[in-house]
Amino acid sequence: MFHKILIANRGEIALRIIRACKELGIKTVAVHSDVDSESLHVKLADQSVCIGRAPSSESYLNIKAIISAAEVTDADAIHPGYGFLAENAEFAEICQQCGITFIGPSPESIRLMGDKIRARQTVTEAGVPILPGTKDNVPDIETAQKIAAEIGYPVIIKATAGGGGRGMKVVHTPAHLPNAFASARTEAEAGFGNPDVYIEKFCEAPRHVEIQIMADRQGNVIHLGERDCSIQRRHQKLIEESPCPVLTPAVRRKMGECAVAAAEKVGYHSVGTVEFLLDKDLNFYFMEMNTRVQVEHPVTEMVTGVDIIKEQIRIAAGEPLRFRQKDIKIQGHAIECRINAEDPEKFTPCPGKIDGYHTPGGMGVRVDSAVYDQYTVLPHYDSMIAKLIVHAETREEAVKKMACALDEYIIEGIRTTIPFHQKIMSNREFIDGVDVDTGFLERVKL
Amino acid sequence: MFHKILIANRGEIALRIIRACKELGIKTVAVHSDVDSESLHVKLADQSVCIGRAPSSESYLNIKAIISAAEVTDADAIHPGYGFLAENAEFAEICQQCGITFIGPSPESIRLMGDKIRARQTVTEAGVPILPGTKDNVPDIETAQKIAAEIGYPVIIKATAGGGGRGMKVVHTPAHLPNAFASARTEAEAGFGNPDVYIEKFCEAPRHVEIQIMADRQGNVIHLGERDCSIQRRHQKLIEESPCPVLTPAVRRKMGECAVAAAEKVGYHSVGTVEFLLDKDLNFYFMEMNTRVQVEHPVTEMVTGVDIIKEQIRIAAGEPLRFRQKDIKIQGHAIECRINAEDPEKFTPCPGKIDGYHTPGGMGVRVDSAVYDQYTVLPHYDSMIAKLIVHAETREEAVKKMACALDEYIIEGIRTTIPFHQKIMSNREFIDGVDVDTGFLERVKL
Repeated sequence: MFHKILIANRGEIALRIIRACKELGIKTVAVHSDVDSESLHVKLADQSVCIGRAPSSESYLNIKAIISAAEVTDADAIHPGYGFLAENAEFAEICQQCGITFIGPSPESIRLMGDKIRARQTVTEAGVPILPGTKDNVPDIETAQKIAAEIGYPVIIKATAGGGGRGMKVVHTPAHLPNAFASARTEAEAGFGNPDVYIEKFCEAPRHVEIQIMADRQGNVIHLGERDCSIQRRHQKLIEESPCPVLTPAVRRKMGECAVAAAEKVGYHSVGTVEFLLDKDLNFYFMEMNTRVQVEHPVTEMVTGVDIIKEQIRIAAGEPLRFRQKDIKIQGHAIECRINAEDPEKFTPCPGKIDGYHTPGGMGVRVDSAVYDQYTVLPHYDSMIAKLIVHAETREEAVKKMACALDEYIIEGIRTTIPFHQKIMSNREFIDGVDVDTGFLERVKL
Repeated sequence: MFHKILIANRGEIALRIIRACKELGIKTVAVHSDVDSESLHVKLADQSVCIGRAPSSESYLNIKAIISAAEVTDADAIHPGYGFLAENAEFAEICQQCGITFIGPSPESIRLMGDKIRARQTVTEAGVPILPGTKDNVPDIETAQKIAAEIGYPVIIKATAGGGGRGMKVVHTPAHLPNAFASARTEAEAGFGNPDVYIEKFCEAPRHVEIQIMADRQGNVIHLGERDCSIQRRHQKLIEESPCPVLTPAVRRKMGECAVAAAEKVGYHSVGTVEFLLDKDLNFYFMEMNTRVQVEHPVTEMVTGVDIIKEQIRIAAGEPLRFRQKDIKIQGHAIECRINAEDPEKFTPCPGKIDGYHTPGGMGVRVDSAVYDQYTVLPHYDSMIAKLIVHAETREEAVKKMACALDEYIIEGIRTTIPFHQKIMSNREFIDGVDVDTGFLERVKL
């Protein structure tokens, strides 16, 4: 096992990793920017090193400074957390070259899954379903009609050079294709100086469902069930839960098997997440694989009892998995709310000094946070200041428990998204749980 | 199910019950003394009623005021928590007469188990082992020698009129009996004005191990495994854990069966605890049955996943048990530390204003507490201000997790027993867990 781990991150995930290390008897080194010296991860680690100024490029993304800090403190491994350098293949490679274990997958796995086209190809070879379509230019309406007929309506026409929704046209019937095709090309030309478009199956009102996987260096891969992360605002997850309220045991098993097959195909080791879109008929399509621990990993920990961070560290140290697939049992229901220092309606960041802080407690209530009373939430970093996670026997009880816990959570001095979450927990559609998809927040009046 | 429950208690247990009610969709009424209006249970209940002045006899033990509060607020049930009126058969009876459900066992069960002699007789009839001996006066040394030979050495001679350790003599061999017998009588005469003594088997270095039981009004009884509460100071439990580190599966099963048999014998319903002494050879002896929920119930909740308070409420509402014995699985290891507002060495109460408060968090960490920053811990009531509970895969990890959580727990402005618990969590004998008994704190130098 490692002697000392450097945590190349900040905030709640740095604290989460420090706690896991302490329980495993491993020493910890915190790194921090000059404005972060009062952060809890700095106070709770055994050692700390200031690695640069506030902008992430000068500190938390500063590979040279981080490697130096590891060498100076004699750390034998680095945990990157999520964000920052967590999916930077070059960083993983440099760690290797310096004889420091990168607690994550191989640089090759990071690189492969980071390339969306190659990732799609690879998982397809492993038998994982992807949304039908083409990434190549569709030159004329005849080709468009042929492709659309092949993949089936509805389809979506997207600009090859586009992004962010511009130039996209959803087409539900063949009759509407010619007009849509023409105007998509015109908009693409106007928007990106390039009229090229491609066509893909349109997944209507999908859920975002992802599978947590865990793979050791001996080639054993298991999954820990799914997380439903459909409550999103502009592709930003706000609430996650496990299990997904609409998944059937058969689809769950198939989705789990696909995630394991994808991981096996790339010879993956460490923990990771395979993300899928789930349509109303419970067909699912690979989106991407995240080659790191995710913000929402606690909901999986709550329903499986498996400490994902500790297992990730054990795997990195070369230990074989301590669980087989049949050992993993999903018990009860867990929900996580991301509490952000943001205006609860406009979601604009509201950093500042916390003046009054009280966390909820009791059975099945977990708080993962690195803030405290009189702590100043900095404008330089992500606005998420806490994750509130609850676990109960049923989804209904979990929703009620979350509502109670949110009522008890007091954060004064700054604005937070607690009122937003309170509205969601009392929203009839969310409580029912059936008609929730990634368009929920655009559609529903809270 | 109940419409509204009045909680006839204060502090963390009142909050625990309020949270359970909220999750079950039941309205809550808090009662409080005049000095308790700033307490969290008052703030979090749907309604609150001041029932009298600070002394418990005028408020939390004031049956008339509590019944009035229930009638005025139209509460259809009363939860007594622990302490105060929780084991007062008369109170349970008055509730019944007023058409209010007492959330606990029948007055008859409370009365029977509250009478130590009758309780011993009853459980003996149910086949539960008790310490051999007699409660009758032993008139002369010949009778003493006969009894001691029958029950086997070591024995303990106790004053019939005594208590609190005075006049007690432990005798390990027959040769020492005559002197011990004579001086026990002399001391009893001097101490209590009555020389009568009786003889009982002496249980050397016992552990305190108790079984949580759960019984519905339909006659179904199950147990939820055991709690080891051997870390005591002057019969005051300070640390509890589940499972007991030395119990074998066979003894656990036998002890569980005995607890169930005892509950069945008295037609018990509600939750309750059967307490045993466990000797070094894993023989166990009935001590008493507590006919209420206990302070340490969370460790059982953590290892079984069963919400004991919610089940207690369901049972009181007439619902049958939702679990059979085979559904109850003990998973991992849980430890609870009682954090008292006391000097951590002398254990003298240190009430006062909390000026700085931060609770630990993360996976498997639970805080049950009703205090908050700037709250004034009152001198009128019990000094326990928080229960810190952790749950991990193994006992070793749970001890480390508790040590970490204690390090993170900040309570400023008053003295607390956190430093005491920190010493225990780093004590080699406690960590080993094998040689722990109720004499641990007297024997071990921390």
